[in-house]
Amino acid sequence: MAKKISGGARRRFLARSAALASGAATATLSPRGAAQELAGHPWERAYGAPFTAYGQPSRFEAPVVRHIARPYGDLAPGTGAALSPIESLEGIITPASLHNIRSHSGTPDIDPKEHRLLVHGLVERPLMFTVESLLRYPMATRTHFVECSGNSSRALVPQPAQVPAGAIHGNMSCSEWTGIPLRVLLEEARLAESAKWLLAEGADSAHMSRSIPIEKALDDALIALYQNGERLRPEQGYPVRLLLPGWEGNMSVKWLRRIKATEGPTHTKDETSKYTDPLPDGRALQFTFEMGVKSVITRPSSTMTLPRPGRYEITGVAWSGAGRIRQVEVSTDGGATWTAATLLGEERPKAFVRFRLPWEWTGKPAVLQSRATDEKGRLQPSRKDWSARYAPDMRYHNNSVVSWSIGADGWVTHVYA
Amino acid sequence: MAKKISGGARRRFLARSAALASGAATATLSPRGAAQELAGHPWERAYGAPFTAYGQPSRFEAPVVRHIARPYGDLAPGTGAALSPIESLEGIITPASLHNIRSHSGTPDIDPKEHRLLVHGLVERPLMFTVESLLRYPMATRTHFVECSGNSSRALVPQPAQVPAGAIHGNMSCSEWTGIPLRVLLEEARLAESAKWLLAEGADSAHMSRSIPIEKALDDALIALYQNGERLRPEQGYPVRLLLPGWEGNMSVKWLRRIKATEGPTHTKDETSKYTDPLPDGRALQFTFEMGVKSVITRPSSTMTLPRPGRYEITGVAWSGAGRIRQVEVSTDGGATWTAATLLGEERPKAFVRFRLPWEWTGKPAVLQSRATDEKGRLQPSRKDWSARYAPDMRYHNNSVVSWSIGADGWVTHVYA
Repeated sequence: MAKKISGGARRRFLARSAALASGAATATLSPRGAAQELAGHPWERAYGAPFTAYGQPSRFEAPVVRHIARPYGDLAPGTGAALSPIESLEGIITPASLHNIRSHSGTPDIDPKEHRLLVHGLVERPLMFTVESLLRYPMATRTHFVECSGNSSRALVPQPAQVPAGAIHGNMSCSEWTGIPLRVLLEEARLAESAKWLLAEGADSAHMSRSIPIEKALDDALIALYQNGERLRPEQGYPVRLLLPGWEGNMSVKWLRRIKATEGPTHTKDETSKYTDPLPDGRALQFTFEMGVKSVITRPSSTMTLPRPGRYEITGVAWSGAGRIRQVEVSTDGGATWTAATLLGEERPKAFVRFRLPWEWTGKPAVLQSRATDEKGRLQPSRKDWSARYAPDMRYHNNSVVSWSIGADGWVTHVYA
Repeated sequence: MAKKISGGARRRFLARSAALASGAATATLSPRGAAQELAGHPWERAYGAPFTAYGQPSRFEAPVVRHIARPYGDLAPGTGAALSPIESLEGIITPASLHNIRSHSGTPDIDPKEHRLLVHGLVERPLMFTVESLLRYPMATRTHFVECSGNSSRALVPQPAQVPAGAIHGNMSCSEWTGIPLRVLLEEARLAESAKWLLAEGADSAHMSRSIPIEKALDDALIALYQNGERLRPEQGYPVRLLLPGWEGNMSVKWLRRIKATEGPTHTKDETSKYTDPLPDGRALQFTFEMGVKSVITRPSSTMTLPRPGRYEITGVAWSGAGRIRQVEVSTDGGATWTAATLLGEERPKAFVRFRLPWEWTGKPAVLQSRATDEKGRLQPSRKDWSARYAPDMRYHNNSVVSWSIGADGWVTHVYA
């Protein structure tokens, strides 16, 4: 007999049940099945593995790795990007081992005892910091996404790529960062009145460098030292990186070796030859710092299969460089109608939110889309609207709506809609 | 000349500056020093390392590992605990690789294709779940700590151990967990009216098992499948674990193979021979499920050194099994006076909060302590008050105040105060 639960507990209970992947996903247990199962598996009869000092995933999860894109192949094996397998991840935090990477000349092997951070240029008191000294400063901890401005450029080729969602849209991740507010170090160096920009330079062999308006540096910029609780990973800038929340990923300069206060932008190679946005009239936008409002459904997504009609959860992540996410809407009919999804984490600015929506798949073809709105009221653009803004060779800041098609056979494919 | 900043930005600027580790930690840069530094290090002149599919920490962080305690040594290398190196961590999230572990018979190597979860006993419809089917359920994501009820037992020996904070108090960690609310599966199995308890059993060779009141199961219990974005680690119960937020860690049964609905508690070996609390009068408490309100200063902490007098940040974590942390107070004079610290994350129930307080160390001996208060108004007890409640052989639920002494030489030692 079904248990009777009264009051609030029962209402919560029923609300949850409505979202169930009902029956389809489970099997009723026969007495014989129970007996077989309770007899146990081999690992229940053998003493287990010893403790590990630094743990690793199960060997059965070995396929869950970053999607590596190396445009120059073995000639430059550390040049390109490694995209996060967002189709296999859940929640908001990206584990550091699966964080996206964009590198111009590989990952330097930096000895933190030798590394220095200089603050110089238009300052009264130029300073040199050891990593040890930085680690003794008061810290701030915040959760922020980092997205390469070239993320989703693979969705701009003529035919939709039939690859996992992360191989297209995974050049972004979200971590809990801990570090020193940059303004603390600038105050200590006594910034000159004439300083309106900073040059930030990395200690990689490309000396990746970008110009940063002083307003951002004094607002929410961090000198990041920790990621998700532990020290930064080498591929994320160990021992110290800049973090400019919500702005183009490559401005959050990794392996940070110097910050030079200047009157104007330095116009480095990285902000003239790359990271500019060609327009339909032949001109180009420079310094498009802020990342747009965006979302992507991670499950179901391309290359997956729905085994049978029934209840599913549609889930994904949304984010905006302008601040908090206010709403994520999901369409299952290619944009004809939209339903607001449940959000998690929407109190945090410039961070992922996780969205979820229960969905009954009847077995007929369907096109799944999501669109996010941020606290500034900006709506994620359709693919058509976004494309009309730029020249055909635009490869940055693609925040347009992503479409996954479900076939009658349950196959999920990437489509342009 | 120092930059003038007007309005709110300036006020924030000055507030931060007041918390500076002033001067002591930095060096003024000479022109010669700058020239030497800008000449660069070897890693700035060599092409870096290729991308990795699944990243790892810098080799220079190799000392940051779990503190392993194996009471039976090589005879049972997976029996005991591996404690989180909280003294080296920051923020709130514990990386999965450094999460604390408590295991009774090692870590089983479970094939998720073969593993099953049974829900049976006093249910109308016994069920058997494959892991694949569980992964298709609607998910919930929440941040919660897990603390072994034996955490801090090493602070109950006669002499204070001079080891890092994590080796004493690191049998706890905090993660972002994603999984299925347990009540969803119980509803699907149609729990009988007579079911008041559950038995939860693991698939390790010890078949670790605990009894759980039905109220907790229907409240916030999760069938956890993901930790910090990726699938559970083997040492955390891969492919599926129970998570009972705020309760004794070992009740969050890892490698979960079955849940049996029962009328009363099963009185398993794990809740009779262990995990009971001896009292001064010779009786013992059984089923002390909820973990108490607690905090520990992680920096500075035992075995560290303050290199010189000056400004430091005192920081640590606080948590309570009863809900949210409302306040953390810090004393630098052995409990004579207390100052409220700044909190981060206090909106989340049954999760770590990070606390921070700037402190000027004059160079004189000092004793640092922290004490937390939760939303139920419970105050973390002094060592003396806590000890009076139990028999001398009590080894569980030690949530008493932790004391670190700073000597005139800057050495930080563990003291009982």
